[in-house]
Amino acid sequence: MSSPPSPEPRPVTFLTDFGYGDEYAGVCRLVIAGIDPRIRVIDLSHGIPPGDVRRGALALAAAVRFSKPAVHLAVVDPGVGTSRRALVLTCGEHHLVGPDNGLLTLAASVLGGIDAAFDVSETAVRVGDSDTFHGRDVFSPVAAELAAGAAPGELGEPVGFRELVTLELPEPVITPDRVDANVLYLDQYGNVILNLHEEALDGTFFGLGKTVWLETSMQKMTVPVGRTFADVPAGETVLFTDSTGYLAVAVNRGSAAGRFGLGPDNQVRFTPVGPEADSR
Amino acid sequence: MSSPPSPEPRPVTFLTDFGYGDEYAGVCRLVIAGIDPRIRVIDLSHGIPPGDVRRGALALAAAVRFSKPAVHLAVVDPGVGTSRRALVLTCGEHHLVGPDNGLLTLAASVLGGIDAAFDVSETAVRVGDSDTFHGRDVFSPVAAELAAGAAPGELGEPVGFRELVTLELPEPVITPDRVDANVLYLDQYGNVILNLHEEALDGTFFGLGKTVWLETSMQKMTVPVGRTFADVPAGETVLFTDSTGYLAVAVNRGSAAGRFGLGPDNQVRFTPVGPEADSR
Amino acid sequence: MSSPPSPEPRPVTFLTDFGYGDEYAGVCRLVIAGIDPRIRVIDLSHGIPPGDVRRGALALAAAVRFSKPAVHLAVVDPGVGTSRRALVLTCGEHHLVGPDNGLLTLAASVLGGIDAAFDVSETAVRVGDSDTFHGRDVFSPVAAELAAGAAPGELGEPVGFRELVTLELPEPVITPDRVDANVLYLDQYGNVILNLHEEALDGTFFGLGKTVWLETSMQKMTVPVGRTFADVPAGETVLFTDSTGYLAVAVNRGSAAGRFGLGPDNQVRFTPVGPEADSR
Repeated sequence: MSSPPSPEPRPVTFLTDFGYGDEYAGVCRLVIAGIDPRIRVIDLSHGIPPGDVRRGALALAAAVRFSKPAVHLAVVDPGVGTSRRALVLTCGEHHLVGPDNGLLTLAASVLGGIDAAFDVSETAVRVGDSDTFHGRDVFSPVAAELAAGAAPGELGEPVGFRELVTLELPEPVITPDRVDANVLYLDQYGNVILNLHEEALDGTFFGLGKTVWLETSMQKMTVPVGRTFADVPAGETVLFTDSTGYLAVAVNRGSAAGRFGLGPDNQVRFTPVGPEADSR
Repeated sequence: MSSPPSPEPRPVTFLTDFGYGDEYAGVCRLVIAGIDPRIRVIDLSHGIPPGDVRRGALALAAAVRFSKPAVHLAVVDPGVGTSRRALVLTCGEHHLVGPDNGLLTLAASVLGGIDAAFDVSETAVRVGDSDTFHGRDVFSPVAAELAAGAAPGELGEPVGFRELVTLELPEPVITPDRVDANVLYLDQYGNVILNLHEEALDGTFFGLGKTVWLETSMQKMTVPVGRTFADVPAGETVLFTDSTGYLAVAVNRGSAAGRFGLGPDNQVRFTPVGPEADSR
Repeated sequence: MSSPPSPEPRPVTFLTDFGYGDEYAGVCRLVIAGIDPRIRVIDLSHGIPPGDVRRGALALAAAVRFSKPAVHLAVVDPGVGTSRRALVLTCGEHHLVGPDNGLLTLAASVLGGIDAAFDVSETAVRVGDSDTFHGRDVFSPVAAELAAGAAPGELGEPVGFRELVTLELPEPVITPDRVDANVLYLDQYGNVILNLHEEALDGTFFGLGKTVWLETSMQKMTVPVGRTFADVPAGETVLFTDSTGYLAVAVNRGSAAGRFGLGPDNQVRFTPVGPEADSR
């Protein structure tokens, strides 16, 4: 608590799979406060499913889109203790800090792409000595030093962009008369978020105001494409573009995940509603 | 992060049903920080059951009682995407921001009543363009602008108090020899909070230090009325006035919700313990 | 929000079993902000299992090790409403605030031991009037006043160290050829944390790089002792020293708690791998 360094530090956003039952996120906050007590930590979520790098990457990308320049600390790190790199990615005035497992690359794209990348695995600002909690010992001090004004080159070694692990997302199959999508994740309300963007569906049977066949391994039904779940009566199903830009299946005031028994990676098929469909 | 506006902004308290698994609360924090990074966000809870306006309203009312002047941002909004209004309610030096579905009115009463109400559905400070996430796109920027010093009339149009949706709470039936109450909610410890205040029971058989019959659809038993669950031995049941002012059923070091199988809206009947009761 | 007192207040760290579904932690934050809005509250966790003093004590001790001077507010308080004391423990430049039930004593040891102890049960800075929510009414205002610069002697009466309730942890049985340990808790990843420290095992068959028999009530298997769960292939079991310093059983990219069916207090026996073991 001695005289703090000037100028005003940047905020640190903070996303992990540490959960809320342990002190893991809290001890990281203490490490950050110990480096500069003025740093504002903005929690994005600590409820990413344990080890689910893809869900973490999607949440981080959805959030940074709304962020002013900041340091984004993200730790979903099932490979901690292996030789996977610890990274700083610089994107304009933003820094992303986390493991080299694909967690950061989608957010980097949202922020305009990577300007420079650094391997901070052997950083001199490390605290603690664990082989299993780099969130506390490596990523938090690196993020705090960046927020307090350090240059990433002071904290690690440059690394080539092509060496970075990138996130693998399932690719939908889009044809004029059939769309095969996959479930990316389920949100808090049971909305089923799919690997589809509205614009990718131009030229297909799929569009706002239309009705399409939705087919899962369990059932097949016609569903309207709307702007919001409130476009259908309570209890009915609708397709709409979610606030993150992905298409989602929702049940108004209900849970689409529950109704359709869908989970991550499950396939959903869409086909046109027409004479051949009605004849079934 | 340019020179921030003076004077010091007000804090924003923040209560939602967004849960902790998604980035929804986090992205709202980013929107607020983007408008004025000095705003302190004080989380009340993001664990309100999805769509449970009543639980949100009760939690908000219990919290604001202990708040200095602030902007209270509350989003439990199952009607997002419908024509329901987005509101600012001004109560003395406090502002309440949220949907017009009854979420805010109980807190407004605790804060001394509504001095002015504004419909901010079409506010110019909107960010994003979703039809399903007004927490991020409408309520957060409105709350942040108010915290930073904007007048509510700059953010929306005045609306008459009588047009507001008010919260409907179940009414207990209180007679000198019978009290029919309803469960409002269950808390973290399994305490069962009822729609009863101690003072409303004056003139009945119900009072501190007495014992009453408690009857649910499942069982009937005598229970003492105490000051705290610690007034009975571990494992025993007691009635007491909860920290929020409502009467609650508790099991000392146990879960009353579990023991009695009670959930929201279930009815609980209280009758006097006396000769006619003992003869059963 | 009038002119705040100088100098800059200390941060308040905050750990409870209040959970995330109710407004309980939020209303404490409001009480603290009401005393000095400049106080930074650093959440450690509010997800301690309800009433689990031992888990709270272990989480607090693991966190304060990484803390600069601060006020540590901790509330896991199943005895609220009884005559148990409300405490401030002063340890160097740190203050610990919470109930006298063993929650604070382990953290006090980590902070170098108790320099002074105070009973603040009857403190003049109390807010509210509940008999069941001393987190809000007693501990939060005491913590905030300490953070704002009050001396603990202004808030309560001195109490002798020997009168304090201390935490009881199960003691392992360590012999040269057998180690009987107990499960302290399970973490978010299903790691099983044991009441064993590596240094206590010197002179036994147990050591880094060795393999030992692990025996529970359900099964017996050989397990290597490594530095991290990544020392074994995905799906395999390993013993390692956790980031908190305790030995833990882990399954790489899996849940040891699930595999072994272990919970708090369950016993785990370790014996040497040798000819007599192999002949079974």
